[in-house]
Order: sequence, then C-alpha cells, then structure tokens
Amino acid sequence: MAPVGPRSGDAIFANMERVNAELFTLTYGATVRQLLTDLEEVDEVNKQLDQMGYNIGIRLVDEFLAKSNVSRCIDFKETAEVIAKVGFKMFLGVTASVTNWDADGTCCSIVLEDNPLVDFVELPDTCQGLYYCNILSGVIRGALEMVSLKTEVTWIRDVLRGDDAYELQVKLVKQVPEEYPYKDDE
Amino acid sequence: MAPVGPRSGDAIFANMERVNAELFTLTYGATVRQLLTDLEEVDEVNKQLDQMGYNIGIRLVDEFLAKSNVSRCIDFKETAEVIAKVGFKMFLGVTASVTNWDADGTCCSIVLEDNPLVDFVELPDTCQGLYYCNILSGVIRGALEMVSLKTEVTWIRDVLRGDDAYELQVKLVKQVPEEYPYKDDE
Repeated sequence: MAPVGPRSGDAIFANMERVNAELFTLTYGATVRQLLTDLEEVDEVNKQLDQMGYNIGIRLVDEFLAKSNVSRCIDFKETAEVIAKVGFKMFLGVTASVTNWDADGTCCSIVLEDNPLVDFVELPDTCQGLYYCNILSGVIRGALEMVSLKTEVTWIRDVLRGDDAYELQVKLVKQVPEEYPYKDDE
Repeated sequence: MAPVGPRSGDAIFANMERVNAELFTLTYGATVRQLLTDLEEVDEVNKQLDQMGYNIGIRLVDEFLAKSNVSRCIDFKETAEVIAKVGFKMFLGVTASVTNWDADGTCCSIVLEDNPLVDFVELPDTCQGLYYCNILSGVIRGALEMVSLKTEVTWIRDVLRGDDAYELQVKLVKQVPEEYPYKDDE
C-alpha cells in the first residue's frame, strides 16, 4: 500500500464543506463595518480584527491538521510553505507564495495575489489606516502558536492601500512549548 | 435549442467560488462574540446581526439573480420556495423547506435542518435571549425587499434554544415599488 502523504490544498478543498464566497465576503465586510461603527477608532478595529483572527486560527489549525495529513514540519521554512500552498488553498480557495526570506530563515513574506476577502471592497477616506484584512494576520498568528511557533505578523503591502499585492510578513519570535488552547472553564 | 430554465441550487453551488465552511462558521462566531463584547446587551446584538444581514441581503440578491436564472416569481408562495430550495443551497450549501402557510398565502415558515452557522456552537447561560443566527433573518428580509416584498422575519424555532429545528417565519407585509438599493452618494 502506498504511504499516506500530505494531500494537496486543491484535493482537500474539493472535498470539504464549503459556502458561497460572496456570502463570506459580504459577511466579513458587514463585520468590519459594524466594528468601525461600534469602536470608532481605526486602530482599535485593526486590533479587534487581529484578535478575532487569532481566536479563529487557534481552532482552525485542528481542522487543518485533521484534513490535510500534513505531518510535523521540520522547520519554520517548511511551515511557511505549507501555510501558503495548503492552508490558503484549503480555507480560502486561493494559493499564496512565500518570498523574501531573511538570511537565518526566521522571517519571510506570504504574498497573495487573489484575496476573496476584498471583492468589491473600496475603502472610504475615513478609513485610511485600516488594515481591512487584519483577520488574516491574526489567523496565521493563532494557528502557528498552536504548533509552538510564536510569530509577529504584519502587513507589508495591501492592494486596498494602493499596493500591487497583499504581502504579510511573518517573523518567528520564538518556539514555545505546546499548550492546550482552551481554559478548563470554557 | 432548449429554453434556459432556472438552474437547481445544487448545480449553481457546484460552480460558484466558495470558501471553507468551517472558516465561515468560525468567522461568524468571532463576529457574534465581538458584538457581545462591544454592545453588551443581547437585544442590541440581535438587532445589529439582523441589520448586518439586511445589508448583506440587499447585495446578495444581485448575485442570486445573476447566477440562478430564476425569472420573476409569480407570487410570494413561489418566492418562498425559491429562497428555500435555490437560495439556501446556493449560498450555504443546505436545503430548506417551506411549511405552515396561512390561508391567504402571505405567511409561511422556512425550516432548516442543517445550519452551517452553528457548527460547534453552544451558548453560555449569559447569552439567553440571543438569536445567534439572526443574520439569516436579516438576509432574507433584505433580499426580499430588493424584489419589492416587504416582510417581517422572526424565529419560531432555534436548536440553540432547545428546539428540534431552525424555523423562520416570513410574513409578507406589503409589496412596495422597486427602488434602486443605493443612495447616490454611497
């Protein structure tokens, strides 16, 4: 029998339960709009989107590990490739690429050309400073923390701010011992 | 050449861009949680979820009409069937049924057995009174308003509140002239 290897993002994506991408895009848009109304400060909205993403990431990693057959990555470099090639495909249906590695392999960029979160989105002038897709940086940060990698994730390029692609810098801060993600009383 | 008829929800769903259902479920959950934190009052959260849904519905109807090849429904009864059989399948990947019609055909129930919004959701005691899926009632209300049907949509049964299914009552209040959904300055 052939060994069970990691499955491609395409194959996994084709076999998962899915919802319409426009419904997702509009729901996310309604969420950002609501946060802007409730919190007023753009910086606070950025922070909350990141926190929401973090809470999603720490749970989504279970689904990822269960469905992808990805075994433990040997290093941060392989982990980043798996996120870009398998993770993004599996959850958002798009592929990302990994570039701009630093010399010691602890910092890289994940570049997205297609981003379903922003279809039809235009930011009004009052929202300058908003990282509309900040939920994504939180998801990556949360998911990586669940596999012992503490990272900082920041936006380098953002099409909504006039750049030519979406680029997230992922910087490995330290490897931490694995912890159970939920408190006992939750 | 055979005439182009309405397409089934299944066929449309299979050919649309989609995202992972768990990502959607977790994103919606994070949104509800954030609203509970920001707004504190459960009633206010219900109201805002409904309003978010309304804003989504008035835009989602365009996608629905563009992709479904559904022609103008002859009456409210046919409209309700199309929402349940085509709309829910197209956007959430589940089918709903229409029941409990009143005598004059202006009030019915849409019943959902499967509801991707609530996977893994349990409400804590502090959230009694929350209509967790209230975004759905808003979506239906918003979408119907765009096709000249002013409705009231209320929850009759909710599994998260201990019932055996999700049942939304849709009551036709009046038929209004069609209006362009956006203000000129938006």
